[in-house]
Amino acid sequence: MSRYWSDIVNRLVPYVPGEQPALAKPVKLNTNENPYAPSPRVLEAIRHELGETGESLRRYPDPVAKRLRAAVAAHHGIRADQVFVGNGSDEVLAHAFQALLKHDKPILFPDITYSFYPTYARLYEVEYHTVPLTGQFTINVDDYLQPNGGVIFPNPNAPTGHALPLAEIERLVAANAESVVVIDEAYVDFGAESAIALIDRYPNLLVVHTTSKSRSLAGMRVGFAFGHPDLIDALNRVKDSFNSYPLDRLAQAAATAAYEDAEWLKTTSARVIASRERLTAALSALGFEVVPSAANFVFAKHPAHDAAAIAAKLREREIFVRHFNASRVNQHLRISIGTDAECDTLVDALKAIVA
Amino acid sequence: MSRYWSDIVNRLVPYVPGEQPALAKPVKLNTNENPYAPSPRVLEAIRHELGETGESLRRYPDPVAKRLRAAVAAHHGIRADQVFVGNGSDEVLAHAFQALLKHDKPILFPDITYSFYPTYARLYEVEYHTVPLTGQFTINVDDYLQPNGGVIFPNPNAPTGHALPLAEIERLVAANAESVVVIDEAYVDFGAESAIALIDRYPNLLVVHTTSKSRSLAGMRVGFAFGHPDLIDALNRVKDSFNSYPLDRLAQAAATAAYEDAEWLKTTSARVIASRERLTAALSALGFEVVPSAANFVFAKHPAHDAAAIAAKLREREIFVRHFNASRVNQHLRISIGTDAECDTLVDALKAIVA
Repeated sequence: MSRYWSDIVNRLVPYVPGEQPALAKPVKLNTNENPYAPSPRVLEAIRHELGETGESLRRYPDPVAKRLRAAVAAHHGIRADQVFVGNGSDEVLAHAFQALLKHDKPILFPDITYSFYPTYARLYEVEYHTVPLTGQFTINVDDYLQPNGGVIFPNPNAPTGHALPLAEIERLVAANAESVVVIDEAYVDFGAESAIALIDRYPNLLVVHTTSKSRSLAGMRVGFAFGHPDLIDALNRVKDSFNSYPLDRLAQAAATAAYEDAEWLKTTSARVIASRERLTAALSALGFEVVPSAANFVFAKHPAHDAAAIAAKLREREIFVRHFNASRVNQHLRISIGTDAECDTLVDALKAIVA
Repeated sequence: MSRYWSDIVNRLVPYVPGEQPALAKPVKLNTNENPYAPSPRVLEAIRHELGETGESLRRYPDPVAKRLRAAVAAHHGIRADQVFVGNGSDEVLAHAFQALLKHDKPILFPDITYSFYPTYARLYEVEYHTVPLTGQFTINVDDYLQPNGGVIFPNPNAPTGHALPLAEIERLVAANAESVVVIDEAYVDFGAESAIALIDRYPNLLVVHTTSKSRSLAGMRVGFAFGHPDLIDALNRVKDSFNSYPLDRLAQAAATAAYEDAEWLKTTSARVIASRERLTAALSALGFEVVPSAANFVFAKHPAHDAAAIAAKLREREIFVRHFNASRVNQHLRISIGTDAECDTLVDALKAIVA
């Protein structure tokens, strides 16, 4: 604390990201990164932007990321004016809180969900109510049909991995015409249905994507929002009052190339999904209860072993998983899907720990 | 406008960045970019981070940019806990408005200065008073010795290029102990004295730097704040409530390498300074009144020709300079220092226009 801090700084509860261990070869299953490298076209595009001398880096990047938005719009079959780009989906979500979710009524999100949401709400002084997940860790759309200043949740949800069918998302969006529904689809490519198909019909729907998961570009910080041009306009007004050039030249080149290689996305996502099913079976065989997942992670608990203790023992073996010290989920572990070899290393370690 | 917008979105007046022309070879003297490529070590560092496959891009970057902050701290002879890193100095400034400049009393900045300041103030609902520059477009420190919630200005100032001596900055900081003074040193390497030397003695001083100007990395979006650890802590609390990973892997590698090549900075900055003096002489010979500049741009007016008209005629020749349609300065042009060849092209065109 300091007398120089603004009031809001004193009230903040900053988000704590998953650990980035400084080990040479950790089995890192704690931040939902993709186990596979990005498309080779990404590397090619970055090298092309750099050229022989890196001379282009002296110039500001395109502040509106025209080429990138065109590529992403083409991939999803929508228009470029329905696309907003930000410095990772975390920045996109932050702008959405400030631009579209700050109204007189409190917003709604699940009690168990992405833990950055309450942090954004404090930063922008947005009131919120949390809506409990069901006993099976699923979202019940009926619970959200109440007055609100906005609704936000991930689909699939994090850290549970549970996905709602598109029809349920549509039922919510249609019944909630007075405020904005933000569907955070960071993990959608691993087995859920995207709500992008609905943006032409519902002016109150904002869908958020990232290149950090299925496109293997967590290291490059590129995220998107899709929706009616009025919603995109609101995000741009905040962005242009905050930072005109949030995406550097290499990030724009990398993300554009990633969207131009749909085949790579399909192949690597299929491999992750196959590994997820394999890991789910192995964990179940060890006695874990695993929430059915449509994401690139599983959420699991062991009825006879403390989750924090398991995580600590895995850490001794340089295997990193995520444990949330929060009510209702402090006996669960969130385990990112690695390669089959990484999953095998994890399962072998767990055999020794829970045997 | 839309019923889904928050109140703040309706009140925003977004910043308008300088044009990024889509021409093959424009003479682009409108956004104060460096005419020289970044250090060759930058290219080398990016290539090293990419490796053979770009595999590291699948992993999140270091959220606290430890290596980069260490390199920058070493360069300036300060400690890493006195360094904050952001996605360009615009993001750093935005966080400073929210974290350190939002108090009950209005903040002070010059009437003629970086036009993003009033935009930030509106975004975060920070009250401000503008303090007129003198008739010679200089800052008079005495004008800022009045009750305030903070003070911010660039040194050298933009778009005038005028620099205050360090002793005047220190007089202001010392006399203003109750609130934070932010000195925005984007252009300091082109001829002004840095206030970083004062941060150990004044807990209310925040100095902001960027890699976009003297380090030729506008395309990579990296900026810094230097100050007492309590001020840095405030910025980190806002940053970690907004976006945990604002700098991608390649931006961190590029900026680190740029700070490790002090010789490149020295050589290229000296060339820019020499070109500035040469251009100043040529403009004066054409009858322009040029404000003495310590930056990589000059601010000039012609007593007999309308500034907007000159800018339009230059544009027809694919030469871009910046004209601000604002009171007191709408007869001036801000001209970035290009290579000597680019400056010659400009001067030849101006000869035809003002002859």
